[in-house]
Amino acid sequence: MQWQAYISVTGRVAAPPATQRFYPYRRKTLSIKELFRTKNMTSDMPVLLAAVSILSALHMAFQARRVGWSRMKYKIMPPTVTGPPEFERTFRAHQNSVEFYSIFLVVLWISGIFCNEVLAALGGIMYIVGREMYFTGYISESKKRLPGFYMVLCVQLFLTVMATIGIIQSFLDKYLNIRLL
Amino acid sequence: MQWQAYISVTGRVAAPPATQRFYPYRRKTLSIKELFRTKNMTSDMPVLLAAVSILSALHMAFQARRVGWSRMKYKIMPPTVTGPPEFERTFRAHQNSVEFYSIFLVVLWISGIFCNEVLAALGGIMYIVGREMYFTGYISESKKRLPGFYMVLCVQLFLTVMATIGIIQSFLDKYLNIRLL
Amino acid sequence: MQWQAYISVTGRVAAPPATQRFYPYRRKTLSIKELFRTKNMTSDMPVLLAAVSILSALHMAFQARRVGWSRMKYKIMPPTVTGPPEFERTFRAHQNSVEFYSIFLVVLWISGIFCNEVLAALGGIMYIVGREMYFTGYISESKKRLPGFYMVLCVQLFLTVMATIGIIQSFLDKYLNIRLL
Repeated sequence: MQWQAYISVTGRVAAPPATQRFYPYRRKTLSIKELFRTKNMTSDMPVLLAAVSILSALHMAFQARRVGWSRMKYKIMPPTVTGPPEFERTFRAHQNSVEFYSIFLVVLWISGIFCNEVLAALGGIMYIVGREMYFTGYISESKKRLPGFYMVLCVQLFLTVMATIGIIQSFLDKYLNIRLL
Repeated sequence: MQWQAYISVTGRVAAPPATQRFYPYRRKTLSIKELFRTKNMTSDMPVLLAAVSILSALHMAFQARRVGWSRMKYKIMPPTVTGPPEFERTFRAHQNSVEFYSIFLVVLWISGIFCNEVLAALGGIMYIVGREMYFTGYISESKKRLPGFYMVLCVQLFLTVMATIGIIQSFLDKYLNIRLL
Repeated sequence: MQWQAYISVTGRVAAPPATQRFYPYRRKTLSIKELFRTKNMTSDMPVLLAAVSILSALHMAFQARRVGWSRMKYKIMPPTVTGPPEFERTFRAHQNSVEFYSIFLVVLWISGIFCNEVLAALGGIMYIVGREMYFTGYISESKKRLPGFYMVLCVQLFLTVMATIGIIQSFLDKYLNIRLL
């Protein structure tokens, strides 16, 4: 199952034969060299990016939930989206997160895959923190959304720069066969 | 073309030599063993996830289209987004789908790639069904959106749990070299 | 780093050994054959799709920015989303882009990975152009959004057809072991 999953995402298609060639008995204690190779066997799973993406998805769902709570608090039944200022701020805070979420996912994954997964994942965590600051700040007062907003912008700028560097590197590598690193 | 496409997504880079090593003549009748390996050669394409994603994208476009039809029906010209209750419910039903669509794609792909593609794809189909129930229910009456909404929530919870299990497994495998399966 | 990144996205797991087998000294001048293989080594990075995605993400951010400028111009402080017609058109133009952005990313990547990366990337650039036409047209007058809108629809239809063809091909290949190409 897991193995099937591995295969689905990666090209570990030539791997099974390779595996059998190098260490036929999976379960036996591995030598350092084999251990290193075994590590490589799965090092193609961008697990940090996946973890950050799931965290951000849960955070998006949590924001939607809080809009629902605000609806109950102020007795604002769907489809109404107007009401007391606090409800409208809560609603817009969530909307703004939605407007930027796809952009975030694009820069997170491309920077992580084309440049550096660890830095991208750290950026992703910063983004979630910034989004939370934005949301809680916005609810209390419109102006208080700004610190979180600037933090989110900085993270997205950082990830976009990483992504651009990574894309240029692999473009040169793939189409002009130039290796910068 | 297709081959190029395969290469683009997968690391089947070491594969061609491997192929030639094992069966130089691609087109000759394949033995069971070769047939099995040939299957593997392309089993790294998450085709079920892709198919479900395209279906869900078409469903999103169809919802947007129905908002447009509702605009015509009630003569509500853009950029206006308010009007008779039925139009507002149609508009909000679509908005709610938009708010959750990115979250859905994240959990669909990560659960399918890190845990089990078939289960994730089935979950994705359930999600589309739930979204349709939500949309058609919401149009007729606000309360009637709830069954579809709960179905959508259950599917997302299910996919999130799968994704989390898959991430933990591959994290242990990749960074601590522990294989649970 | 870059290398690590390569590994993260691709299954170039069996590749490192392969590399060493074929040309132990990375930095030496490559023969035509080696050069060709080296090209293949990285031809699994969908760099064109990544580049178009980053461009589209920047364009989405630019649209959000222009909504902000329109807020300043008409002194409309968040969370308010109503005001003079021009502001409301600007706001809705951005909203419409947001509603379609996830759909665009899905068809862009699936058509590019399962069918043809170059055609998909060209379609993606056309989409961004159409979106810009839509946005600038919509701001000046509601009717003027239509040319860009139809262009966007055509591109999405084109990418969806490509994606469907690619999915059918790899479904046949993966599950029924039938190669159409």
